[in-house]
Amino acid sequence: MNALKIGIAGLGTVGGGVVKALQAHGGQLDARAGCPLEVVAVCDRDKSKRDRFEAKARLGDTNALLASGADLIVELIGGENGAAPELVEAALRAGKHVVTANKAMMARHGARLAALAEEKGRALRFEASVAGGIPLVKSLRESLMVYGVSSLRGILNGTCNYILTQMEASGRSFEEVLKDAQRLGYAEADPELDVGGGDTAHKLALLTGLAFGIKPDLDAIAVSGIAHITPEDIGFAREFGCRIKLLGIAKQTAQGIDQRVQAAMVPAGTPLADVDGVLNGIFVNAREAGPYFFEGRGAGEGPTAGAVVADIVDIARGNTGPAFGIPAASLGTLTAAPAGCAASAFYLRFQVLDVPGVLAEIAGHLAKWRVSIESMIQRGRAPGEAVSIVMITHETTHAAVESALQVIAASDKVIAPPCRIPMEAK
Amino acid sequence: MNALKIGIAGLGTVGGGVVKALQAHGGQLDARAGCPLEVVAVCDRDKSKRDRFEAKARLGDTNALLASGADLIVELIGGENGAAPELVEAALRAGKHVVTANKAMMARHGARLAALAEEKGRALRFEASVAGGIPLVKSLRESLMVYGVSSLRGILNGTCNYILTQMEASGRSFEEVLKDAQRLGYAEADPELDVGGGDTAHKLALLTGLAFGIKPDLDAIAVSGIAHITPEDIGFAREFGCRIKLLGIAKQTAQGIDQRVQAAMVPAGTPLADVDGVLNGIFVNAREAGPYFFEGRGAGEGPTAGAVVADIVDIARGNTGPAFGIPAASLGTLTAAPAGCAASAFYLRFQVLDVPGVLAEIAGHLAKWRVSIESMIQRGRAPGEAVSIVMITHETTHAAVESALQVIAASDKVIAPPCRIPMEAK
Repeated sequence: MNALKIGIAGLGTVGGGVVKALQAHGGQLDARAGCPLEVVAVCDRDKSKRDRFEAKARLGDTNALLASGADLIVELIGGENGAAPELVEAALRAGKHVVTANKAMMARHGARLAALAEEKGRALRFEASVAGGIPLVKSLRESLMVYGVSSLRGILNGTCNYILTQMEASGRSFEEVLKDAQRLGYAEADPELDVGGGDTAHKLALLTGLAFGIKPDLDAIAVSGIAHITPEDIGFAREFGCRIKLLGIAKQTAQGIDQRVQAAMVPAGTPLADVDGVLNGIFVNAREAGPYFFEGRGAGEGPTAGAVVADIVDIARGNTGPAFGIPAASLGTLTAAPAGCAASAFYLRFQVLDVPGVLAEIAGHLAKWRVSIESMIQRGRAPGEAVSIVMITHETTHAAVESALQVIAASDKVIAPPCRIPMEAK
Repeated sequence: MNALKIGIAGLGTVGGGVVKALQAHGGQLDARAGCPLEVVAVCDRDKSKRDRFEAKARLGDTNALLASGADLIVELIGGENGAAPELVEAALRAGKHVVTANKAMMARHGARLAALAEEKGRALRFEASVAGGIPLVKSLRESLMVYGVSSLRGILNGTCNYILTQMEASGRSFEEVLKDAQRLGYAEADPELDVGGGDTAHKLALLTGLAFGIKPDLDAIAVSGIAHITPEDIGFAREFGCRIKLLGIAKQTAQGIDQRVQAAMVPAGTPLADVDGVLNGIFVNAREAGPYFFEGRGAGEGPTAGAVVADIVDIARGNTGPAFGIPAASLGTLTAAPAGCAASAFYLRFQVLDVPGVLAEIAGHLAKWRVSIESMIQRGRAPGEAVSIVMITHETTHAAVESALQVIAASDKVIAPPCRIPMEAK
């Protein structure tokens, strides 16, 4: 049986892990693949990185990698644009299979690259792009697709989940916990892509594409992060029997697909609420087949390299079908649900001056937008200090809450931008 | 593109669901399969059942099904021996692919049938045999296998989990709740296969085979059920911060693979403990890739028929590799860990006469077998009544507990067989 010749671009943690896994577990992986898996070339601009690994060829540029005789290129360079998509496109054009962990590239260029792969009769696989080692891409593509998916909700960013879990455990602020997370290596020096929700959005775009059979559409996602969450919000969440999680959400609605990344209240005791620390967890509603829940490590060498290697073995076995499960030409174009039409109950927190009439004013504005209140907490503070008024609303639209809050924020009795966090049922 | 011609044997809930799913979702499934999926024949001994479905051929016996021109046979007859394995073997010999939901048959004859399928270059798929729609067979076979699996623990029988959940919620006895479950259709008229642990053992044998690359070995599983669990045990479990679940457990140990089906104490707040009602949940420790948890519906038309259809689509796409992930000839033979060498902490409950010296006697026997006690509860009852003494031990071997309990059970102060439930860490 001919060997499958593999070239690996990008020798950071994941790339190194892939080489190590293929070396350490070669025998059983070859048996599963049905042919020897042979790393013929590794490639990194950094010579000290590539010199760490044994391979027939240790290369410094991707053109040499493309010329190395590899049948399959593993792209672990990263980045939405530039070297990564250029390599992937060139590899596919040259008739090579591609495995990537690059969520940003796939979210932006995935549909185009999938079409190119198909045209060339080659595979494009990206399991490691979403939720690390959890076999979510494969499960959506090959298992949960029979009856279609009506919605999914996922904790897809370990950094945010670690920060929220730590804020809850310690009572400290977002800023303090973020600094600790950076020190421990759980957050980047520039944390914006994680804590601003952008990384979750990349992953959500891919999951939405897989779940609904459409081209990933990053621009259709309303994205917010977790920097506005305070220890006070987390404390109130607990009083209401909830935990706050950054979720990527995709839902089929009558008006189209609602795709959002946002911090949400999740009822304690449900699987998503119990996902702690750096773990990822995803809840998928697969219509007649019922709900599914997946949990595991969303990042790190083992989970991510494992996902890359599983994709390589899949391709070696001949499982080389369309990247998103259906032919690229059949992938639909997303019809986005109009912004704001999504409905949920809300947690609202107002920082107000403790003066007569303030509650009446807030309640009045909410009533005008037909936002009705299910329960409320107002706590006394020291005289002269600001008070927090906290409410849980009945189900309403995001647009109604948005409109009411704009008016309320303008009041001279309201001394900080109101905080709103939607409640997610499961 | 040629159609994949499908023949379905057994038109109960699942078989009917498969026909319905293929009809209702034909377009998108054909796109995923890469070819039309055509049901050419349905087969059931019961004419009234087969007359419910539209198909080119509605047949009463499996020989006619084999002659119907189908490329793929779906076996949903059930049963460890007899018609089901005969049909599967004949179908494979005739060069047809096979998809089955038959856990008993696969647990007993899986290795042999897998070898036959390989010899004939055909696929044998059984996703629906374990945990309904949860893509666990595929995940173990194609995703979690990179670094190997060190252990797995699963709630694999919805009937038992429903009964335990109801006992916990209502405080009623096993017998009472079982009767309700039978009335509601959650338990069979003859419930032994479920509540005795046999059904879980069938599924565990398959998972062990997939996870460790060995031939399923049903006889190596120590099996017990849930009929001995009392409301008192469930109440004490809660006091110790645990819930009682029937688990299928497979663990790699230094002495071999320890495979057990037994009721166990699981710490509340961990994913397995929170699996409620008829749901299934499985925790897989995949070494460097870390722990994974999967939850979903383990039975019923949608989940099970969905799993069958996903297998059909897989085969249509050409994903026809070995049934257990590695070639049948490479499947190892299980080395079973010696009975009793498995170690865990234990919950022990003794029904004793409230007389002086009883605790000293029990503690003495435990000490003789080096079973040391971590905590103990003894509650007073009305004078003259029996009392319960409940203990949590430190980690010890199953054999030591077994030996100590045999001696203790023989005491004239102990009025009922002692109850022991191991504690499972996750």
